[in-house]
Amino acid sequence: MEIDLNCDMGESFGAWTMGLDAEAMPLVSSANVACGFHASDPGTMRRTVRLAKQHGVSVGAHPSYPDLVGFGRRDLQLSPDQVRDDVTYQLGALWAFCRAEGIPLRHVKPHGALYNASARDAELAQAVADAVRSIDPALVLVGLAGSEHGRAAERAGLPHVAEAFADRAYLADGSLAPRGTPGAVLHDPARIADRVARMVEDHAIEAIDGASVPFAARTICVHGDNPAAVEIIRAIRARLSQAGIAVRPFASELSRRERP
Amino acid sequence: MEIDLNCDMGESFGAWTMGLDAEAMPLVSSANVACGFHASDPGTMRRTVRLAKQHGVSVGAHPSYPDLVGFGRRDLQLSPDQVRDDVTYQLGALWAFCRAEGIPLRHVKPHGALYNASARDAELAQAVADAVRSIDPALVLVGLAGSEHGRAAERAGLPHVAEAFADRAYLADGSLAPRGTPGAVLHDPARIADRVARMVEDHAIEAIDGASVPFAARTICVHGDNPAAVEIIRAIRARLSQAGIAVRPFASELSRRERP
Amino acid sequence: MEIDLNCDMGESFGAWTMGLDAEAMPLVSSANVACGFHASDPGTMRRTVRLAKQHGVSVGAHPSYPDLVGFGRRDLQLSPDQVRDDVTYQLGALWAFCRAEGIPLRHVKPHGALYNASARDAELAQAVADAVRSIDPALVLVGLAGSEHGRAAERAGLPHVAEAFADRAYLADGSLAPRGTPGAVLHDPARIADRVARMVEDHAIEAIDGASVPFAARTICVHGDNPAAVEIIRAIRARLSQAGIAVRPFASELSRRERP
Amino acid sequence: MEIDLNCDMGESFGAWTMGLDAEAMPLVSSANVACGFHASDPGTMRRTVRLAKQHGVSVGAHPSYPDLVGFGRRDLQLSPDQVRDDVTYQLGALWAFCRAEGIPLRHVKPHGALYNASARDAELAQAVADAVRSIDPALVLVGLAGSEHGRAAERAGLPHVAEAFADRAYLADGSLAPRGTPGAVLHDPARIADRVARMVEDHAIEAIDGASVPFAARTICVHGDNPAAVEIIRAIRARLSQAGIAVRPFASELSRRERP
Repeated sequence: MEIDLNCDMGESFGAWTMGLDAEAMPLVSSANVACGFHASDPGTMRRTVRLAKQHGVSVGAHPSYPDLVGFGRRDLQLSPDQVRDDVTYQLGALWAFCRAEGIPLRHVKPHGALYNASARDAELAQAVADAVRSIDPALVLVGLAGSEHGRAAERAGLPHVAEAFADRAYLADGSLAPRGTPGAVLHDPARIADRVARMVEDHAIEAIDGASVPFAARTICVHGDNPAAVEIIRAIRARLSQAGIAVRPFASELSRRERP
Repeated sequence: MEIDLNCDMGESFGAWTMGLDAEAMPLVSSANVACGFHASDPGTMRRTVRLAKQHGVSVGAHPSYPDLVGFGRRDLQLSPDQVRDDVTYQLGALWAFCRAEGIPLRHVKPHGALYNASARDAELAQAVADAVRSIDPALVLVGLAGSEHGRAAERAGLPHVAEAFADRAYLADGSLAPRGTPGAVLHDPARIADRVARMVEDHAIEAIDGASVPFAARTICVHGDNPAAVEIIRAIRARLSQAGIAVRPFASELSRRERP
Repeated sequence: MEIDLNCDMGESFGAWTMGLDAEAMPLVSSANVACGFHASDPGTMRRTVRLAKQHGVSVGAHPSYPDLVGFGRRDLQLSPDQVRDDVTYQLGALWAFCRAEGIPLRHVKPHGALYNASARDAELAQAVADAVRSIDPALVLVGLAGSEHGRAAERAGLPHVAEAFADRAYLADGSLAPRGTPGAVLHDPARIADRVARMVEDHAIEAIDGASVPFAARTICVHGDNPAAVEIIRAIRARLSQAGIAVRPFASELSRRERP
Repeated sequence: MEIDLNCDMGESFGAWTMGLDAEAMPLVSSANVACGFHASDPGTMRRTVRLAKQHGVSVGAHPSYPDLVGFGRRDLQLSPDQVRDDVTYQLGALWAFCRAEGIPLRHVKPHGALYNASARDAELAQAVADAVRSIDPALVLVGLAGSEHGRAAERAGLPHVAEAFADRAYLADGSLAPRGTPGAVLHDPARIADRVARMVEDHAIEAIDGASVPFAARTICVHGDNPAAVEIIRAIRARLSQAGIAVRPFASELSRRERP
């Protein structure tokens, strides 16, 4: 048994630090690296790609709406063409650092408001998928389970991987419990670690009302932006290890095919 | 006999238009495309790459210091590492649009203050050359004749092409007459066209004092930012045609080697 | 009889020029000056304020969403607090140039997507009005007739002036004919000039279906971004002059009260 | 006896936090508030002004070169006119938040590379002083002792206050020991506190070679960007209190004159 843990990385900007990348990187298997539109800058991108390489972590792009001051969390309502071009630009920029550091770019996961908008809106999802495919049809589109992300990837002939969230409660229909709801966000490391292990072992997630939701994700999103978040990843790693579950990039199998 | 005409392109930004790209593109053989740091945006980059493709024009990157409001003309005094990373980022971004549109990225020519600083400063030239080589060692570094550009390219094992300026007067030592000097910038289309033809035919440039300067350039920089500038390119084309000199990308021969 | 003509000004940015400010400024009575968020930069703001002063044109701020690449035309969906703070920042920045050049800041007219959003949304209109009042309760809020702009100004105790559009057709209910509709945008200078004169003389606008709509506006929005637009202002000026209607800042009467 | 402690504040940006403003604000008497060019954003500016007001701290502007990614530390080599306009813009923006929150703007201290460049270069210092005076001739220009800052303020008829640095060693000629030199930056809170108290009591600073340098500063610059820095301010406050020295805004006396 194996699972991937993905984590947003490289979200510092200029003189500002965000995230405990040095602590979190050795604990995860895939890094979603910011590309300068919601966070990061060229120097940060290079350092992040190097850090990922050093720890054998698979690198993906984490493109966003162009909104530094809003950290990519504001819904900019761009047209599909604008989204396609903005994503193309960002993928190229990160690809260049991967190339310069001698490692492949493996996946793409949209960030923040672009993630949410493209999960809901078929045209925006298509714009993202088109940008990805135009760069490299072997790139994996990582997105929300059951959303437009998967459908767009399929139409574009792109590999797609759905993600689950380690610290979010699910409703019986498989969707995330809205952030306002009591219990929507989990905080206890042991409980989260346990949940993650059971997702992988049982191929199911226990929903907030006790129902069992099928777990179709091949990667689990974790956070590394504060000491408590890193503590949670540590607990997950320990629990997975105990259960004999390896933490390995989801892209490993897919990418094996494309390798010579 | 053949020569390349290179021209800065894609310098519009958002709602602002700069340059008569549609008029100038059919007249040149190489386009230096802005990458979003001194001008351009993702949509403009795509449109510019498409326009170049449509006219069979060879595409190069025109990276800059990060200075939109100063149009990349202010000397930002970045460290060599910052320059290397900023150039890497921009090359990747433009590469992505070339890739998406199905044409190769052929050359790199630094813009504005970065051009001047890296022509003078060996470390900055090296930073540019390192960034270029780390993306693709077949990319041609276009720079100032006799400057650090060529030496850095040589050290990095990159092909290098020096450029001459169609509308600038030269001193007897082969350097450009400073912009303030009377006669430093030429304006008469017929005279400029004549000069360009003689550069190619005679392998020499007539300096401002009448001396003959050896012409080692394989590309001539022309401008397309206003109707008078486009008129000058038209005059050059007509005069070259008369002299039986083909206008063809400098990269054509070099790139032939790398093609399968 | 008198009327004000207001025009967006100072929308150049860095090396990019937009608008024929030098031609349009002598023809209008109020300038809505961009504040650096959708267009303009500190140097452009100073030059624009100086140009307005030179022609005795009343200066207002034209604040926007922070969206340079989108020219403030994209609906950023900011919170009311963000809008209030963004508008406060921009008003202060323009106020500084007015102060430095020795002329008063008279009015505020939101730009683009912020204009449209705050015309529709009471909370956003309130955020704009609160920002304006917190700087100077004598500033006039210029907005869309019959929209939330007026109601917010009233609640905030701010003077409010509604604007009509010289080149836009109106529906029988007094709203603008949507841009897609045939005839929604007028192009003939003579016809536009005639319409404007009749608005002022008859206190009424002829709607697209022939109905008569009451004209409550005290300023008419004109454009100066291209030669045809400037031609239209010239036609309006000539027609108004013929009709004995003076072109004078709407703020003149209001501001008389506050003067020593 | 009294002295002012000034501290850079409001250097967070969007989602990024910098500085322990909430901890440091109650300990200082003057806040140099970032204006959006090297750090801060409209929301951060408002919160910082409110925090200063709440603790009775005097507010000044901390304008910078326009260089967010470089945190205003890169020497942009702007022309004096560009500096004057950039500073004017920033002063106005911060003035607006002071006005909205009902407190005066008291002083201006340039940031980073602009501080250093204008301390050395008479024309840049003049550009800063001209911008300040054009907004309000009662604003105090805070700068480096013995530098162009003071001379420019004098020529402009502006009040000027020189600052000393709590944690920097001085040479016998009164200049700062360069950052590379051993002992150039002090770290021990007790020693720093002692030094500050003696500066105020003895009107002299002990230089790195034991010489006594006259202390002409009316404000002492302290830092609040990390827990150790805040600890140092606490130690200074305790030591000053012990010595019967009040911590009070330098602007208090100057501003008394302008008050009604």
